[in-house]
Amino acid sequence: MDIDRRSLLGASAALASASAAGAARIGTRPRIRRIATEEAFATPEQLDALRAITRSNWNNEDANFWRGILSNPDDERPAPLLDIGEGRLRDMDANGVDMQLLSLTSPGVQMFDADTGAAIATSSNDRLAAAIARHPDRFAGLAAIAPQDPKRAVKELERAIGGLKLNGIIINSHTNGEYLDQERYWPILEAAEAMNAAIYIHPRTLPETAIGPYRDYNLWTAMWGYAAETGLHGMRLLTSGVLDRFPKLKIVLGHMGEGIPYWVYRIDHMYAVTSRRLPVKLKMKPSEYLLRNFMITTSGMNHLPAFDYCMRVLGADNIMWAIDYPYQASAEAVTFMDAASISDGHRAKVYHGNAERVFHIAPA
Amino acid sequence: MDIDRRSLLGASAALASASAAGAARIGTRPRIRRIATEEAFATPEQLDALRAITRSNWNNEDANFWRGILSNPDDERPAPLLDIGEGRLRDMDANGVDMQLLSLTSPGVQMFDADTGAAIATSSNDRLAAAIARHPDRFAGLAAIAPQDPKRAVKELERAIGGLKLNGIIINSHTNGEYLDQERYWPILEAAEAMNAAIYIHPRTLPETAIGPYRDYNLWTAMWGYAAETGLHGMRLLTSGVLDRFPKLKIVLGHMGEGIPYWVYRIDHMYAVTSRRLPVKLKMKPSEYLLRNFMITTSGMNHLPAFDYCMRVLGADNIMWAIDYPYQASAEAVTFMDAASISDGHRAKVYHGNAERVFHIAPA
Repeated sequence: MDIDRRSLLGASAALASASAAGAARIGTRPRIRRIATEEAFATPEQLDALRAITRSNWNNEDANFWRGILSNPDDERPAPLLDIGEGRLRDMDANGVDMQLLSLTSPGVQMFDADTGAAIATSSNDRLAAAIARHPDRFAGLAAIAPQDPKRAVKELERAIGGLKLNGIIINSHTNGEYLDQERYWPILEAAEAMNAAIYIHPRTLPETAIGPYRDYNLWTAMWGYAAETGLHGMRLLTSGVLDRFPKLKIVLGHMGEGIPYWVYRIDHMYAVTSRRLPVKLKMKPSEYLLRNFMITTSGMNHLPAFDYCMRVLGADNIMWAIDYPYQASAEAVTFMDAASISDGHRAKVYHGNAERVFHIAPA
Repeated sequence: MDIDRRSLLGASAALASASAAGAARIGTRPRIRRIATEEAFATPEQLDALRAITRSNWNNEDANFWRGILSNPDDERPAPLLDIGEGRLRDMDANGVDMQLLSLTSPGVQMFDADTGAAIATSSNDRLAAAIARHPDRFAGLAAIAPQDPKRAVKELERAIGGLKLNGIIINSHTNGEYLDQERYWPILEAAEAMNAAIYIHPRTLPETAIGPYRDYNLWTAMWGYAAETGLHGMRLLTSGVLDRFPKLKIVLGHMGEGIPYWVYRIDHMYAVTSRRLPVKLKMKPSEYLLRNFMITTSGMNHLPAFDYCMRVLGADNIMWAIDYPYQASAEAVTFMDAASISDGHRAKVYHGNAERVFHIAPA
């Protein structure tokens, strides 16, 4: 999770020129709608509350991440995060991005006490709904909820989906070291299933009970630890039995599925071998839940071999395009997806069709 | 890590008949040498010492794993592990496996106190050398060392590689929660590099500082946690700078690279973005060390899409075939590798050429 304005990868020059060529082509071939599905924003209330945390002496890597951003007046990240209007639209226009599905930036409201978390979730959802009302063809959004108080989170979920017509839910992985499969959070899963609201599980730092050896060499970051944390959250949902209890629940994982698709063979194999020792028996193989209940996005993984792999094991109906704006460059994500060797029909699903279906976005 | 005698995957019947067909074909097309590179054995001394641990009240998942095996007189795993002779050769013959590269089963000697660990490593290496001497065309082996006492581990490494002519080193990931990149273990890396001995980093359970949320639903096992632990070990070596200090070191990771190959784009990208904040600067991109210093094996991952992906991002020179006998079925691993859509030249590299090069095994 870090802005990459200077396109630090070796292929950046080639990507940039390919992107320009792509933009030029838009006029001459059928224009495809591009809906980016993991796009971050912040609210002033959220940043104020994060600033209060950074003034504490809490030695937590999420806190340290925001300490780094908020203690430096020259840090370039807050401005684009706070902009859910003209500046953001300019970046979208420049890169041929039709719509961003917005979500409150990680760790959302999950580091705050329950009352603060609930209040900031509510104000975030109101601001988000207002931004969407101003640009309904350019923005959609995921509702923030504070799992710290599951009953109150359910009320906000129902207000945000039923009332504000937001498009799904964002949860930034663990809450105080707990995960959504734990019984205390089932009311949230139940409400999400009932409202047909997909839950996007976004990375945050590993909890204290798991971060030990990740503290060195920046391994707790998006370079490695975020996927360990979020992949584990996905695996807990996959193996805990909650997807038998809530069979219509939709879980979305970014970053090409947080590693789970790579392991699908071994997960099924080892589940079959060890399941006789488990207290909870699943009705299906883990891979069957992966196909039925999970969607993945391409956020931060502009890597054609990994995309091709996921097309092969999950198929075109289970993958959605994403940028991770403003932490990642829009141009690179567009160039990557334009360059994939897939049929026009599959590209349409990944670029917009699946997002329209899963997040209830009206077709253009 | 669990025996799969009953071939629990759905495709098992098809695999078995394909394997029989493969065996029949051996006479009619050029016979390819099959060297399996992650094959487990145990010694009586090791099992006695593990049995002593299982009688303690140490609530550790590695201890619990062995408690389950050793407390059950009907458990079918000890017998094939202890057999580094005729029984093992029969399985190899039945499946067309020419050679097994043997290694002391996880967690090797790493749960014992330093003296016990060193003594069992020595006796294991002596037994292994004797088994190889009896069947030099069928067995090769990796030396056990006890990192608990690095100086003594170096001496045993030099004896086992220089004297006994073993083919490399096995380390079962963390030792008391510490990793090989830590300065205390550099003498081991230095000696391995000097002796041109590859270090195979095999899974074991996550340490107490990282296992927290993996305790549920058996997630600490080979279904998920083993890869989290071993992938993290690989990433620590990749990002710590030790591969600039020991540039000729060879690290081997099983299970299709313990997830690292899937993330190679994001690792490079995020390393580039965040490296300015790191105290140690690497001389190259992480992916360049992955190609230069790492080998992966196919153990437990008889999955053609993942194999094809790794061929695309790492190439045929960096992948070696493995079964994980006796925890996994030889027939499935042979059938998988025979079925890969690759050239004969690439198949020869993966089946034996790379293993001959990396582990100094004489060509047939």
